[in-house]
Amino acid sequence: MVVSNIKDVKGMKIEGPVVKAMTKRVLISPKEGWEGYVMRLFDLEEGGYSPRHSHPWPHINYIISGKGILHIDGKDYEVEEGSYAYVPENKIHQFLNRGKETFRFICIVPEEGDQ
Amino acid sequence: MVVSNIKDVKGMKIEGPVVKAMTKRVLISPKEGWEGYVMRLFDLEEGGYSPRHSHPWPHINYIISGKGILHIDGKDYEVEEGSYAYVPENKIHQFLNRGKETFRFICIVPEEGDQ
Repeated sequence: MVVSNIKDVKGMKIEGPVVKAMTKRVLISPKEGWEGYVMRLFDLEEGGYSPRHSHPWPHINYIISGKGILHIDGKDYEVEEGSYAYVPENKIHQFLNRGKETFRFICIVPEEGDQ
Repeated sequence: MVVSNIKDVKGMKIEGPVVKAMTKRVLISPKEGWEGYVMRLFDLEEGGYSPRHSHPWPHINYIISGKGILHIDGKDYEVEEGSYAYVPENKIHQFLNRGKETFRFICIVPEEGDQ
């Protein structure tokens, strides 16, 4: 089991040719008892984005704060605090921060998808 | 798939001898593609609480806003925005709002636990 707070979880900054201004925190995984799934928290700072890609596993998402775009399969969806999504496997997708504040979202994946 | 916002999901108020001032929203379930799991959102208004009970499935929780107590197996944990928990199966547990604002949290359960 685990009871904790994201303030106590060190974030890993991710920058690269296809990802910008992203920080990742792993919150709940098989190590804490959740067989087969991993709950991660991502922050995108102003101008940040996740990779535009697809993979053979789905995403389960909930937007905690900020304003952005969730791109799925050729379509842009405006998302903000309280938005949620199920992104099916093998669909091209991407998150983009379109506001000034941090865009923070939960992203749950099957264990094999936590890369 | 689904992309939506909790503002567009009707809440179901739950009141009874063991639960107070609770509203439930079902966000993502097998119907939207998530095989085997259901993501729900719960609001507890001032003074509200969920049932103190146990069941043979775990909870995966993330606290969106407010301040409260997560009771697990004889111990009270103070939780607030950014807190998260994995509550194992068969442990007595309960959420209690201990603030003036709404205590809002995500609660993910295996499909058989969405009751």
